Amino acid sequence: MTATFDLDSLRLTADGLIPAIAQAETGEVLMMAWMNRASIEETLATGQVTYWSRSRQALWRKGETSGHVQRLIEFRVDCDRDCLLLIVDQTGPACHTNRRSCFYTAVREGEEVELMAPEA
Amino acid sequence: MTATFDLDSLRLTADGLIPAIAQAETGEVLMMAWMNRASIEETLATGQVTYWSRSRQALWRKGETSGHVQRLIEFRVDCDRDCLLLIVDQTGPACHTNRRSCFYTAVREGEEVELMAPEA
Repeated sequence: MTATFDLDSLRLTADGLIPAIAQAETGEVLMMAWMNRASIEETLATGQVTYWSRSRQALWRKGETSGHVQRLIEFRVDCDRDCLLLIVDQTGPACHTNRRSCFYTAVREGEEVELMAPEA
Repeated sequence: MTATFDLDSLRLTADGLIPAIAQAETGEVLMMAWMNRASIEETLATGQVTYWSRSRQALWRKGETSGHVQRLIEFRVDCDRDCLLLIVDQTGPACHTNRRSCFYTAVREGEEVELMAPEA
């Protein structure tokens, strides 16, 4: 059973945003960023992931300058329709620190542990 | 190299919240919810994941009524310190719809596709 996806069904914040989790096909969670309606439309239309940069208040075509693009493999919505999960094919590191994932810091017994180093 | 984890290093929203992604050890992304300082402290102290319910404006001890608890395996912070990734051992379904994950709806060629059914 399928139904046509309606962007209006998403529950955006007062600022018109929705969190989007990017996950590699291997299962690794790469990053979390925000999308707005325009970035979702562009992502679905082009297959290249585009976020909304809250700091720059502009569309953020992931990898546009770095080359570290994300090709959309699957677009998922959660039960409450207030969070997105993007399965992506990540070129290069996802993180601006040049690490594969932004979640490279673990907290173990109150201490921070670095899980991965920047890529060469 | 390790450093003591300081809760004050987290960048919370104006409401004092931070998004937290729960991921199973298998890699499956189960849900996204919000935490505040008290819920983070309780989660780290008890090893049982506690969120902040924005709708109820109260601590949400995941599974307290359903039994579908999340045991914390690892607590991770992202590069910007404005998002958490919790690796968890999930008892039963994570989603209130009785599905393993809240992200059970995919959008494929404009149509919604249900990826998993509620558990029995």
